Order: sequence, then C-alpha cells, then structure tokens
Amino acid sequence: MDWLDAVKWDRDGLVPVIAQEVGSNDVLMFAFMNREALARTAASGRAVYWSRSRKRLWFKGEESGHVQQVHDIRLDCDNDVVLLKVTQLGHEPSIACHTGRHSCFFQRLEGDQWRGFDPVLKDPETIYK
Amino acid sequence: MDWLDAVKWDRDGLVPVIAQEVGSNDVLMFAFMNREALARTAASGRAVYWSRSRKRLWFKGEESGHVQQVHDIRLDCDNDVVLLKVTQLGHEPSIACHTGRHSCFFQRLEGDQWRGFDPVLKDPETIYK
Repeated sequence: MDWLDAVKWDRDGLVPVIAQEVGSNDVLMFAFMNREALARTAASGRAVYWSRSRKRLWFKGEESGHVQQVHDIRLDCDNDVVLLKVTQLGHEPSIACHTGRHSCFFQRLEGDQWRGFDPVLKDPETIYK
Repeated sequence: MDWLDAVKWDRDGLVPVIAQEVGSNDVLMFAFMNREALARTAASGRAVYWSRSRKRLWFKGEESGHVQQVHDIRLDCDNDVVLLKVTQLGHEPSIACHTGRHSCFFQRLEGDQWRGFDPVLKDPETIYK
C-alpha cells in the first residue's frame, strides 16, 4: 500500500500537521496538508502545506523566506495527524509565525485573558514586502 | 469579552488541541475540545477533551489513570488552535497514547513506509481493564 493511503484524510481531503523545531522541541505552528502537499514535503525535504484560505499549495517560506527543512515525518496512532520535525530557516532566532514571532502559540491564558507572551522578532511588514 | 469567545470554534464547535510535555517538550497527543472541555480544563487544571467518536467529554485518564496536569494554555495567532503544556501523570516513564506508548506520534516515515519507532511501555490490555 502506498504510504499516502495509510493516512486517514478528513472529509476535505486534508490532514492536520504540527511542526516542531528540532533541538528546542518547540511547537512552531499548526497547518494542514492535502495528499500532494505531503507527497511534496516528503520528496523535497521542505514543508509544503495546503492553504485553506487561499485554496492552493503553500510552500512554507515562499514569501517570507522562512522555509522549513524537514528531518522527520511522524504519524499518530490513529493515522490522522502528522508531526513534522523541522529546522526553521531564514532568520536567527527562528521565526515560524506570520506575526514575526518564533512560534504561532504566543498567546497565553492568564486568569481570564489571553495575553501576548513572546516577542515579535521581526516586523511583519519587512517580512512580507 | 469572555476568553472562550476569543477562540475560533470550527463548524463542529471544536478546536484542535496539541498536548506537549513540560520538561521534555515532547508532543504527546492531538485531540479536540469543545467550549465546555476547554472551560473545564482551565478551571480544573486537568485536561478534558471532546471525544468525537464517543460524542462526549473525555476526562483524559478517566479509564487509564493517565491524567494530564495542565500548566499552561496557549492559543495560536489565528485563535483556532490550542497548545497545552502538561505533566503526563500515571506512569513512569510517561504514557499519553492508548497504545501504551509515550507519545501518539510513534510512526515514522522511512523511505516509503511508516514504521513503529517508539516502544510500548505498558500493555494496553492492562491499562484498560
């Protein structure tokens, strides 16, 4: 069986994907892939997602330069979630989030409010120009 | 605004949740929460998910004893994914997966095959008895 057939694609033909940074083990971001995105990720060693808003393949870093080099592709026990181990390229310290932060998970629940917790490392206006 | 209203619930009223282990930073599992599950998680400091298969609240560890103590609740840049920082209780070394493994992400893509990569720490038959 094709390894891509082992993945349980959801009703939209997508699978959720977690990107985790090699070394720090930080969770950088969460996105989706369709079959072609996962096939291209495995073949190229660079993360390719499916943009649900733009309805097209999203070569991570295509605009920002913040490419993800993929070291390891994991599948969970139910075959319906993918975990990528990546090196986040393009900026030092690494930026995965479109807001210019290291990780997309920068909002922290404090009492009954979400508060921004991690600093902006680069102004998004200079990332996407 | 209620902090729960800041979350962008999907068309099923759910939000995807990543559970990450404090200390190791390992990604343990991926699941979903509805509004009540997230509210109860925040109030109790124990992870409560929504079981899509059983269509009910799932108090993580209710059968296995593998409870998750929640230290930190994060929200991503789009307000539609939650990241929990947890201590995985109930077994040493820690077990989050129903297969008796540390993490649910134990299958690794090697060439064109998924291979089990991490050991079973406890027989599932003795976990769920």
